[in-house]
Amino acid sequence: MPDRLGTIEARVVFADGSARVDRVAVEAPLELRIVAPGARSTSTVLMRTPGEGASDEELTLGFLFTEGLIARAADVVALRRPEGLTGDERGNVIAVELASSVALAPAERLFYSSSSCGVCGKAAIAQLAVRGGSSASSLRIARATLGELPARLRAAQPVFAETGGVHASALFTADGALIAAREDVGRHNALDKLVGWALTAGKIPLDNYVLLVSGRVSFEIVQKAVAAGLPVVAAVGAPSSLAVDLAEQFHVTLVGFLRGEAMNVYAAPMRVTD
Amino acid sequence: MPDRLGTIEARVVFADGSARVDRVAVEAPLELRIVAPGARSTSTVLMRTPGEGASDEELTLGFLFTEGLIARAADVVALRRPEGLTGDERGNVIAVELASSVALAPAERLFYSSSSCGVCGKAAIAQLAVRGGSSASSLRIARATLGELPARLRAAQPVFAETGGVHASALFTADGALIAAREDVGRHNALDKLVGWALTAGKIPLDNYVLLVSGRVSFEIVQKAVAAGLPVVAAVGAPSSLAVDLAEQFHVTLVGFLRGEAMNVYAAPMRVTD
Repeated sequence: MPDRLGTIEARVVFADGSARVDRVAVEAPLELRIVAPGARSTSTVLMRTPGEGASDEELTLGFLFTEGLIARAADVVALRRPEGLTGDERGNVIAVELASSVALAPAERLFYSSSSCGVCGKAAIAQLAVRGGSSASSLRIARATLGELPARLRAAQPVFAETGGVHASALFTADGALIAAREDVGRHNALDKLVGWALTAGKIPLDNYVLLVSGRVSFEIVQKAVAAGLPVVAAVGAPSSLAVDLAEQFHVTLVGFLRGEAMNVYAAPMRVTD
Repeated sequence: MPDRLGTIEARVVFADGSARVDRVAVEAPLELRIVAPGARSTSTVLMRTPGEGASDEELTLGFLFTEGLIARAADVVALRRPEGLTGDERGNVIAVELASSVALAPAERLFYSSSSCGVCGKAAIAQLAVRGGSSASSLRIARATLGELPARLRAAQPVFAETGGVHASALFTADGALIAAREDVGRHNALDKLVGWALTAGKIPLDNYVLLVSGRVSFEIVQKAVAAGLPVVAAVGAPSSLAVDLAEQFHVTLVGFLRGEAMNVYAAPMRVTD
């Protein structure tokens, strides 16, 4: 059985048949069954690390929000665990009921982002501009403060400490104070969990916070950050070309290769002060 | 413009307005437009690093194969670049025509894996058993040989050397000789490119080769490896719980945290010899 953090025992085995116990991060499917008034129901599956408390609910809310299916927490009328599930489905299904104010059929939106080249085209960018918009945040963060964030994130990663096998996303203030951190086998999930938490806490838009992600920065990470109103995305790893393009377009400060005070700033550098 | 490796210039900017040039890995959408006789056409988008030569064609073939849409290279009748594309679409679309022997409607298969909890359920596993099957490979590899593979992979990663921003997958013989390596911003893509190359080269099933991946091992990586008939999956990073489960079920040797001769073997250890 997974523990409350989302890790499970695995046997490290040897050619002579002996073994010792190791812990690995749980990866399990979470099926979202989404219904909206007047629209046909749809479902999608996220491969995620189940955690304690509201982990799946945060992931669900954050995913629906950053993917553009909902604009606010109130667009979700009900989040339920269906009863009577067995086998693989037990604990791995959430039923989502959307408000009648949610105009577009969920099925249409859910597959929009993965079913046409428009994912990076003008239509998708225009939709993102409506949802998140260009960052006008006046937040500033000192280079020295940025340099301290990776160690603070690492200290807030119990699943990584046990398994070495998960990504993390965290919110910090401009003073470097850790507000919240979330972990997952999927780096997009870790960010969606964080955004889901922020939605529930009434903190969206996150225009006064700094996001730190443990890995690299793809287009999709910046897209989700823009949707959440984040003015600064910092990463320990490298950005992709499309991540840089999108950050420039939405005036999001993009920091890569953050290692102590060494870092590369790829977009909107005015928010990083000496 | 991206260079032939799939990297592009990015400006690293400073608060005082000065800048220097850095290189980042290109991330760009590749839209697959798939038609099969008697089935409605469908499309899907992969966010990938375009490379020189047959990079997109290898990715397309490998993706179609490891996702179970085709069983052999001959199931693809034609792979074409549509003419007359402009803007975002130029260079980023491939039209795929499947043979009439491909029974299932593409749309149905393509979204099967992401639209129901069956992704990890009995139906999906049964389908995988038909395609790849439990590994009966008699391949053996010495611990010392395994330990040398990460450095050999690194030496075959020109895009990583320039950008620090891509994953890689590589095939080795049991003697540790590098056969082929592929890079991409997406780790699944790097593996699909490798499998696509192997399909074209007539090397499937890959039951006499060792796979090394640069990052962590998820369910999906093992799923693709099983489809390609690979008996050994080795990774520099950690496996997830579901990756371990699937490797055990299909008798695939799963090695994680490969760092010199230090490594964890999570499944089918008989193939790792001292």
